[in-house]
Amino acid sequence: MSDRIPFAGDPEDSHEAIMRATFCALQEYGYAGLSIQRIADEADLSKSTFYHHFDGKEDLLLSFQEFMLAQFDRIVQLESTGDPEQDLKTFLGLILDDLPDYGEMPEKDAVLRSLVELRAQAVHNAEFREKYAETDEQFAKRFEGLIRDGIEQGEFADVDPERTSQMLLTILHGAILQHATRDDDPAVEIRETIDEYIEQHLVVEDVAGDA
Amino acid sequence: MSDRIPFAGDPEDSHEAIMRATFCALQEYGYAGLSIQRIADEADLSKSTFYHHFDGKEDLLLSFQEFMLAQFDRIVQLESTGDPEQDLKTFLGLILDDLPDYGEMPEKDAVLRSLVELRAQAVHNAEFREKYAETDEQFAKRFEGLIRDGIEQGEFADVDPERTSQMLLTILHGAILQHATRDDDPAVEIRETIDEYIEQHLVVEDVAGDA
Repeated sequence: MSDRIPFAGDPEDSHEAIMRATFCALQEYGYAGLSIQRIADEADLSKSTFYHHFDGKEDLLLSFQEFMLAQFDRIVQLESTGDPEQDLKTFLGLILDDLPDYGEMPEKDAVLRSLVELRAQAVHNAEFREKYAETDEQFAKRFEGLIRDGIEQGEFADVDPERTSQMLLTILHGAILQHATRDDDPAVEIRETIDEYIEQHLVVEDVAGDA
Repeated sequence: MSDRIPFAGDPEDSHEAIMRATFCALQEYGYAGLSIQRIADEADLSKSTFYHHFDGKEDLLLSFQEFMLAQFDRIVQLESTGDPEQDLKTFLGLILDDLPDYGEMPEKDAVLRSLVELRAQAVHNAEFREKYAETDEQFAKRFEGLIRDGIEQGEFADVDPERTSQMLLTILHGAILQHATRDDDPAVEIRETIDEYIEQHLVVEDVAGDA
């Protein structure tokens, strides 16, 4: 069910259990320490059940990229207000601010670090690079949808939705990379800069006032 | 000598030889395959000479981060025209476009991939995170200088130089991360988007014409 809160309650099936276990194991052991055994233990499943679902670590991590996108979509849906500017900021804030308190959600730093570590594996893995091109594209489409909504509703300027969403995705990746690999917590300042970008580049000033 | 072309001619000393060898070895073997022996071989030096300069791999890679920043500065200096808008674009282009042809420069993709792979090590290494906070800061200062020049010369709008340079750095990191971990070469489109950002956000329109 797509309206369920991510990571809350029991997993729906063993596929979801494995995905959640991967998420936890990645944060606990890092990419280098991520083993099928640890994931199976974390999911409380046997290794043979694991291999019923996945051929191995690479196959698992390709699915995991999609799983993360789906979880993200769920949160966005739960947090959506219907106002494009607000939703765009919420969307970015979900990654850059503290995570919403959904019971079992882990802390932000750990999530961003594991995302970067996993992503860096694509440097030497062509299948990962193909999958990231795909999930990035899907991610950018979420921005694009919100931007198109905003333009239609007259809230946003008549920007190029595709290009602007690529820009937002790029900023987001840059923010994640910096945050996960620096010790001075740049996400907060970056967040303000992004909001400013949205306000200056996207939002149409209400010259006629509130009337 | 700071006006020398990076990576051209013979290294000045064994420190530089080791740095260059690290650069080559990172691209050839990846982070996982980077060993002191391989770097020593590549630099045509003995392991004992290596250990005269560095305590080990971590110490080496902390210096390497500074070396890369210095090389970058050299290229920027060589390519500078004195025009802030042009220099800002050149600066970004040095990373996102094809590298200038300085004889022995390696191809862009390999460089960006090795930068991302190295950077991701900071996820689990506090000293790397500290160093990256430092080199990022220095890098942002380069942007800031160009932005301040542009404002003083009346070419750029009166933006917040610090915040705008943080934005450019974030975009740059996001572009590098995407380019190194996707198979669809997003750097070209991102480059156009950045130029657009500079033109819209920074450059003051010459309303009075060229007169």
